[in-house]
Amino acid sequence: MRLFSLLYLLVILLGILCVFLTVFWVQQWRGGFAWDESGMMFNWHPVCMVTGLVVLYGNAALVYRLPLSWVGQKLPWKLLHAGLTLAAFILSVVGLVAVFAFHNKQQIRNLYSLHSWLGLTAVLLFSFQWMSGLCAFLLPLLPAWFSSAYKPIHMSFGSAIFILSLASAIAGINEKLIFSLKPSNNTAGYSSLPPEALFANSLGLLIGVFGLLVLWMLSRPSWQRPDRHISEARQPLLEEEDGG
Amino acid sequence: MRLFSLLYLLVILLGILCVFLTVFWVQQWRGGFAWDESGMMFNWHPVCMVTGLVVLYGNAALVYRLPLSWVGQKLPWKLLHAGLTLAAFILSVVGLVAVFAFHNKQQIRNLYSLHSWLGLTAVLLFSFQWMSGLCAFLLPLLPAWFSSAYKPIHMSFGSAIFILSLASAIAGINEKLIFSLKPSNNTAGYSSLPPEALFANSLGLLIGVFGLLVLWMLSRPSWQRPDRHISEARQPLLEEEDGG
Repeated sequence: MRLFSLLYLLVILLGILCVFLTVFWVQQWRGGFAWDESGMMFNWHPVCMVTGLVVLYGNAALVYRLPLSWVGQKLPWKLLHAGLTLAAFILSVVGLVAVFAFHNKQQIRNLYSLHSWLGLTAVLLFSFQWMSGLCAFLLPLLPAWFSSAYKPIHMSFGSAIFILSLASAIAGINEKLIFSLKPSNNTAGYSSLPPEALFANSLGLLIGVFGLLVLWMLSRPSWQRPDRHISEARQPLLEEEDGG
Repeated sequence: MRLFSLLYLLVILLGILCVFLTVFWVQQWRGGFAWDESGMMFNWHPVCMVTGLVVLYGNAALVYRLPLSWVGQKLPWKLLHAGLTLAAFILSVVGLVAVFAFHNKQQIRNLYSLHSWLGLTAVLLFSFQWMSGLCAFLLPLLPAWFSSAYKPIHMSFGSAIFILSLASAIAGINEKLIFSLKPSNNTAGYSSLPPEALFANSLGLLIGVFGLLVLWMLSRPSWQRPDRHISEARQPLLEEEDGG
């Protein structure tokens, strides 16, 4: 578990670094933030998406890998997982509003690039995944056997949507740099690798490292919460034996 | 195993479709193929990369999930895995030569975009992974305990590099459409979603579906080759007992 603690700390630090570097990028080179339908409003888009659908999402997925979460009540950890993913969802909506408002004001069409198709797919699947998780694991709406059967599906879809988020973030940073770094915009072209290009390319690679580390930690069987369903499933048999 | 067979068939079909649609895209809208340092030489780049580092790579990873590979000699399956990944590596080199030659002729700088950084990282890690696999599992260079210890690392890195490949392919298709679909190039702009944009965006999503399906199939514990190292590890103990 020493390796887990070390890597978990690394995930936290890398996550904070990803958010910090995204903020620094748009603050330093893209004019900072505003909520006025300008390019400064657009700037909320990368910050919200990286913070929500990459960093908070990754951390929310890792909640059940914390050995602390394996003892005692599971409900507080479920609420933490639901809370972090809800925050991620709210940030993704704010991020979408930011880009749509900017596009509409500048008369740029919405949803034409592959980045936008993939990103919107990720957000929609993420919302659906959140609602399904709420119904299956928090609200007493569905039978226990259904929740048990749905759990591995929820985990697999969680990883898959996270991969879509990562690919979308990387394609988005690439796209933003192509659009912004043009000699006509009073900056050096992307191809001459000005400091902003080096910085944001490195941010893209860092997001990749963060994402792959989270996915690897999620995939290790020995770091998964020991499944309680096994003992629960044996309960009736024990009772029968006691009765006999 | 019926689900496995069905999904394995789907992977094969989706893989063929990804290659076919990539060829169709560049043939229909980007002028087809040539080896003359023109845009037609560039066209080999997406075809080689999608065929090699997405489709062949995904299929090579799934070789050991085939129940057929669990019985009898393991060597033929190892050779198939090594052969498919070698073909993927050769295609990725051809794909790199195609884009470098095109850039050099057109005086476009190499390796400035995030797509190129990520893609080159994927190719380099893939080459390193292939060499490590050759040394650890095919050539009798290293002790058995080393190969056993390296195996899970090889598997995890295999999935991680595959994810980098997918993200890189998606960012690359997005980038190519931004560069090519401009009203100044005698085509409709990307933002007006001409048929080529709809087609290549859909190809990008299909590559995502292919990749996520492969990763999910790789991750299912019950579809993994029953580990023979357990019985191998017990062998000396049995011999000792016999001797005693």
